[in-house]
Amino acid sequence: MPPTITAFENSPDRGRGQARDMRVRWAFEEVGQPYDVHLVSFAEMKAPAHRARHPFGQIPTYEDGDLTLFESGAIVLHIAERHDGLLPKDANARARAIAWMFAALSTAEPPIVELTMAMLFERDRNWYAERLPMLQERVRVRLGELSRHIGGADWLDGAFSAGDLMMVTVLRRLNTSGLVDEYPEIAAYVARGEARPAFKRAFDAQLAVFRAASQS
Amino acid sequence: MPPTITAFENSPDRGRGQARDMRVRWAFEEVGQPYDVHLVSFAEMKAPAHRARHPFGQIPTYEDGDLTLFESGAIVLHIAERHDGLLPKDANARARAIAWMFAALSTAEPPIVELTMAMLFERDRNWYAERLPMLQERVRVRLGELSRHIGGADWLDGAFSAGDLMMVTVLRRLNTSGLVDEYPEIAAYVARGEARPAFKRAFDAQLAVFRAASQS
Repeated sequence: MPPTITAFENSPDRGRGQARDMRVRWAFEEVGQPYDVHLVSFAEMKAPAHRARHPFGQIPTYEDGDLTLFESGAIVLHIAERHDGLLPKDANARARAIAWMFAALSTAEPPIVELTMAMLFERDRNWYAERLPMLQERVRVRLGELSRHIGGADWLDGAFSAGDLMMVTVLRRLNTSGLVDEYPEIAAYVARGEARPAFKRAFDAQLAVFRAASQS
Repeated sequence: MPPTITAFENSPDRGRGQARDMRVRWAFEEVGQPYDVHLVSFAEMKAPAHRARHPFGQIPTYEDGDLTLFESGAIVLHIAERHDGLLPKDANARARAIAWMFAALSTAEPPIVELTMAMLFERDRNWYAERLPMLQERVRVRLGELSRHIGGADWLDGAFSAGDLMMVTVLRRLNTSGLVDEYPEIAAYVARGEARPAFKRAFDAQLAVFRAASQS
């Protein structure tokens, strides 16, 4: 039996591939491994059966035999360690690719989530107009640094790796912010990720889930 | 030659062990490996020589021969993979310990940083009184979930691991917030981490750096 992951029964991103199961789907597609998907509602996510998989009541999770994992970064790393295609063979290059996974999650994603959450949930607050430029500026600092690092390269460090997979999915969360367009190197980098056949298969799979839910 | 890490020449936390080099120092102490420290000023952190080590101009970094790494999570994982003491031998337990490293950085830390940064930098803003309870509530949700997970156990999943090391250092960032005291299981968990001899050696080492800087 292939591993089973959990994903939103009805994703709040309306199938734009910004939920964190997208990272795990993409990783499976890159390494050519099949997977099953168990869809969960928002109520199920917070119920004891799912909390046993994920103490924080989120998606995705990963179940394979007697192993249960949570956290998209940990699941992608687990897949990358067990199958060829997402980590370099050279030990130093492998360590650097893993460092980029952590950079995506720990340095790039927090200010991006803070901005996009404020755009979603604080738009009507009286402080929004004053805070928005501050949040945008924090994201711009990171995008500028990342843009200078990428320069004319295709990927973050040599060949495409799990580090790029994580970084592209993190940057895609900015889709509605307009900020990525200010950095042509980053826009091109994200587009390169989205053009990969494995990305497209993963994207289509999560979109099909959303379309089925919205028709039912 | 032992690996060299970078740390603040003059830590903004005034030696309370909340800077991210503390995680790496603690990991080295747990596995009994020596390390050198290269102190950097805030100006040096943003200069090209350090950007070559760390594209985002932060600390810590790790240099060992021809390998340079950044991101505290990646450095701790690298140390844990090469030396006994921070990851279980059993493959499934090892994967779960790594999942807790990601959970510390990706699920627990972002709302904690958002709260503590607001307490530092937005205290004088007219929105502070209204936003503070919202930020505290986001942290409480995570602390409540973590507290229920820990329950009566000593550590997150069996024996002490790199997952605990990362989680304890993330939770210690709440020191000035008063929130940890609302969750006795979490306060006791953090205290267990701080009581480890390796933690104490790492803490004393970073405190000595701060004291030397403040006397010069």
